[in-house]
Amino acid sequence: MRPAPPRSTLWRHARLASFQAGTAWGWIEDAALWVEGDTLRWVGPDSALPAGLPAGLQVQDLQSALVTPGLIDAHTHLVYGGDRAAEFEQRLQGASYEDIARAGGGIRSTVAATRAASDEALFQAAARRARALMAEGVTTVEIKSGYGLTQADEARCLAVARRLGRELPLTVRTTSLAAHALPPEFAGRADDYIDAAITWLAGQHAAGLVDAVDAFCDTIGFTPAQTERVFQAAQALGLPVKLHAEQLSDQNGAALAARHCALSCDHLEHLSPAGIHAMAQAGTVAVLLPGAFYFLRETKRPPVQALRDAGVPIAIATDHNPGSSPCLSLLLMLNMACTFFRLTPEEAWRGVTVNAARALGLADRGVLAAGQRADFAVWDAEHPRELAYRFGQGPRPRVVQGGREIITP
Amino acid sequence: MRPAPPRSTLWRHARLASFQAGTAWGWIEDAALWVEGDTLRWVGPDSALPAGLPAGLQVQDLQSALVTPGLIDAHTHLVYGGDRAAEFEQRLQGASYEDIARAGGGIRSTVAATRAASDEALFQAAARRARALMAEGVTTVEIKSGYGLTQADEARCLAVARRLGRELPLTVRTTSLAAHALPPEFAGRADDYIDAAITWLAGQHAAGLVDAVDAFCDTIGFTPAQTERVFQAAQALGLPVKLHAEQLSDQNGAALAARHCALSCDHLEHLSPAGIHAMAQAGTVAVLLPGAFYFLRETKRPPVQALRDAGVPIAIATDHNPGSSPCLSLLLMLNMACTFFRLTPEEAWRGVTVNAARALGLADRGVLAAGQRADFAVWDAEHPRELAYRFGQGPRPRVVQGGREIITP
Ligand SMILES: [Zn+2]
Ligand SMILES: [Zn+2]
Repeated sequence: MRPAPPRSTLWRHARLASFQAGTAWGWIEDAALWVEGDTLRWVGPDSALPAGLPAGLQVQDLQSALVTPGLIDAHTHLVYGGDRAAEFEQRLQGASYEDIARAGGGIRSTVAATRAASDEALFQAAARRARALMAEGVTTVEIKSGYGLTQADEARCLAVARRLGRELPLTVRTTSLAAHALPPEFAGRADDYIDAAITWLAGQHAAGLVDAVDAFCDTIGFTPAQTERVFQAAQALGLPVKLHAEQLSDQNGAALAARHCALSCDHLEHLSPAGIHAMAQAGTVAVLLPGAFYFLRETKRPPVQALRDAGVPIAIATDHNPGSSPCLSLLLMLNMACTFFRLTPEEAWRGVTVNAARALGLADRGVLAAGQRADFAVWDAEHPRELAYRFGQGPRPRVVQGGREIITP
Repeated sequence: MRPAPPRSTLWRHARLASFQAGTAWGWIEDAALWVEGDTLRWVGPDSALPAGLPAGLQVQDLQSALVTPGLIDAHTHLVYGGDRAAEFEQRLQGASYEDIARAGGGIRSTVAATRAASDEALFQAAARRARALMAEGVTTVEIKSGYGLTQADEARCLAVARRLGRELPLTVRTTSLAAHALPPEFAGRADDYIDAAITWLAGQHAAGLVDAVDAFCDTIGFTPAQTERVFQAAQALGLPVKLHAEQLSDQNGAALAARHCALSCDHLEHLSPAGIHAMAQAGTVAVLLPGAFYFLRETKRPPVQALRDAGVPIAIATDHNPGSSPCLSLLLMLNMACTFFRLTPEEAWRGVTVNAARALGLADRGVLAAGQRADFAVWDAEHPRELAYRFGQGPRPRVVQGGREIITP
């Protein structure tokens, strides 16, 4: 018996920002998208529809609605217990960082809350966050571990991320970030902790829990030498790496990561010319995180013009996390990338589509073209620049993920 | 025949931020709200419910959900034609303000688009914006004219605002802001324009279109002398005044407004100690607008500590407008008020409830207490501080306006 043919739908009369190369926005004024199963079979001007479309094809008339690729949030810490709202309030009431640390606050409070939470509680909280992102058109999200910081808790957090990818209509890419912070059990023994984290990684990988490996290389994180040991372990397992680099100071982390062919370096406010050069050589994506820049009231901006000049691809992400970016709007990040970092709207949009896909090592999405995944969003707007210009609540799009309409607002 | 008794509902087991005076947040841990018609008949601890509740009272168990007053956005320019997304993009592509002005951009483009739009188009666009605010719990909104700048177009915009208040479950307060910018027809004749605007005001008032009168007093707006003539005309009609003051420079606008017993002075980045003193004496509310501060990349912050020290009530608003704050999230303004201006979460919340009501001259809302309007929001959160801490998309509450549930998410 032959298998049933895949579902096939023809979406007609879109105003399409395809992000195909060659023209601004990859713009097609009156476009059609032919979807077969979870894949785009053909994308182009409606007037040039190919002959031989199958009989019984379902047709959807988009009536000139704007279509963009599904959004990709390439840097999040979506799985954790608790929140830091009380700490946020205490700081605004005048408490110092030291006061809060003495009271068990800061990242240690999130680690404690994460360890104390059941798998189910972690899953439900992360699923709520993921659904908020999805409501604005996000169809792919990267999720890092890094709040468990024990062998069992790191694996639990990665397993929760995997479960999100199975149970929600959302592609989840997992990143092991045990080298996020030094857990209290290893105080004063960072090298021992890195030894432990490296052994955990092999088990996580064997269990199919890891797509990439990340570290936090900074004065308050791990040293370049410790970071390099993590990268060597990842590469021995065939896993790609990325790095939280040059956020608070220049540690030459970007150059180190580029030497290990990192998919991305993230934050980058203090990135040096040498780091930019190394990233350009290696094809490493610069992931800018304007939500953390805003929430931490930073003033040093990443070197956007130098990144442009060097041809380094730029992505934009929420960096959702409870301490420095409790943000659940990738559309707001478009506006903040334009407002704070002076990206153009098209650069910002490429940063949540084609370049975000590249930051995750995914070649099958971020652009709407034949052969790519059928992940797209249908907007009540004329042009994507409007969605970078407005801020606050974004409009809520109709969302197609893997060819299936998953959100109809 | 006696009239039917008003609908009566008892809302039980709320975690209540009432903003009643006396305690932080006016907090009641397990509260009940008895609503009769559009009014709160009784608010207090659930354990202290009064005797003699009517038979057949409808009971809603809130199961410890958080309840706050309905939010009040005390400063918006919600009625206008077109948008300025293309201009936003052009500036990020390197166009100067002069380039854009030469191409007919800036506020002149919004004035032209507003004049060209039909009443129905203005209404539908403003209604979409209003519904976005309402989805986050806004139950009262102030709307200014100021993009028509002819007698007919100013009246049209105010009438559209009035229609919003009739056709949506939303209280709309209108403000006549003909003294927003000098229209091209009056170039070089600002005093003549003020003469004209003053004559229009009497007609707007006679038609019931105006609740308050505002002006833009700044180097690129109108002079203090022109502003004062507008205020005198308003007061002759018995209308309260407010002022866009000290946004870009110190014009002593706040002191001028305070002499006219202004409800509020708004923006205030360049407010002087003398202005603060005058506002405190007059009981004038300081309306801070962090969205415009952000979008314009301002660096001079309003003098929050001095306002606190002087006992000036502080409100927070979106300033929604197409040029300097295309923002439709009052919850995001809570976070920006904390992040940029260092308000505490409670101060920010008082700024969108009790102090926002005061900025509009409304004594019947902003606090949940007996005798007040039954406007409130029910949140999936533990405490209102969480809603100031998160940013980006806010959670979408259940909303009761005038005693009726108008949004059930
Ligand atoms: Zn991060
Ligand atoms: Zn304004």
